[in-house]
Amino acid sequence: MNFLEERITKDGIVKPGNVLKVDSFLNHQMDISLLNEIGREFHRRFAHKHVTKVLTIEASGIAIAYPVANEFGVPMVFAKKSKSINIEGDVYVAEVVSFTHKNKNQVIVSKKFLDADDHVLIIDDFLANGCALQGLISIAESAGATVEGLGIAVEKGFQIGGRVIRNLGYQLESLAIVESMDAATGTIHFREQ
Amino acid sequence: MNFLEERITKDGIVKPGNVLKVDSFLNHQMDISLLNEIGREFHRRFAHKHVTKVLTIEASGIAIAYPVANEFGVPMVFAKKSKSINIEGDVYVAEVVSFTHKNKNQVIVSKKFLDADDHVLIIDDFLANGCALQGLISIAESAGATVEGLGIAVEKGFQIGGRVIRNLGYQLESLAIVESMDAATGTIHFREQ
Repeated sequence: MNFLEERITKDGIVKPGNVLKVDSFLNHQMDISLLNEIGREFHRRFAHKHVTKVLTIEASGIAIAYPVANEFGVPMVFAKKSKSINIEGDVYVAEVVSFTHKNKNQVIVSKKFLDADDHVLIIDDFLANGCALQGLISIAESAGATVEGLGIAVEKGFQIGGRVIRNLGYQLESLAIVESMDAATGTIHFREQ
Repeated sequence: MNFLEERITKDGIVKPGNVLKVDSFLNHQMDISLLNEIGREFHRRFAHKHVTKVLTIEASGIAIAYPVANEFGVPMVFAKKSKSINIEGDVYVAEVVSFTHKNKNQVIVSKKFLDADDHVLIIDDFLANGCALQGLISIAESAGATVEGLGIAVEKGFQIGGRVIRNLGYQLESLAIVESMDAATGTIHFREQ
């Protein structure tokens, strides 16, 4: 097991309905040392790529993308989930259905911050059905930018998102891929990588 | 001028209606080097305080709180703006009116992540009317935690929030306090600190 799988085994909580709670260290309370290690690990896995920007989606994605952007020495851009009056009209838009919140959001990125010269590493905390990632890919493509790869902290391997993204030909790196969970016993099985 | 005032002068954009756009480096696209410097500066200003947690509010607050928590070597907790089905019922709640989005949100923090032993440093990117900060103070107080101070990147000194928070007796440190802005000329005047 790698460092993240070990931490999920220790502090992750399995709830009925295939819900994995990692809110004590990853997406509500954040363990900054762990996140820094995640940043270093993604930097190692994408070291051969030319990355000019790290792209993520609010909110918890920001805390994963921060240390990755820090390691690469590039800016981080986060997609916003709803139209703010402080965003100018000139935005890239994608539609994203949230598994967690059971709703549909428009996600937007200002056209000022992504263009055809950009080589984008897309980062998020969770991958399940892949809608958020596909929205971010769509935004990068609207900008004419190159998607160099995608880095995910926790992938639910029993949902379709990972397969869809890999079938599209992208380098998708998930630090922990959950194959199955059992809420009754609290056990979590990870995919061998 | 300090490093943040210089950056705002260089890259901030003044819009009619007292809107200051800093989205090219602070709250949509993030300059990680600048944020790391903000983290070091808040650590310097609150070095005499006993801090066990950094508390912020999603979304852009997360990117300011990250380097601060990193400097202090403590966890970061962010308040969420709406009730997710993945949050358990046991939460601290405060009501926050957003100046930017012209709406009212409940913000919540799980009771698991703040308690009476915590000494909290509250961090956010912007301070205008102070509603978000008062919501975070209220959540910390609901937990019985001690608020050691509040750190803000950009304060709108011509709005009431800063005065309200300082009058409550808190150490509030704003790295840049905008006294006035002129959308016609693009000029920004900062308060001498």
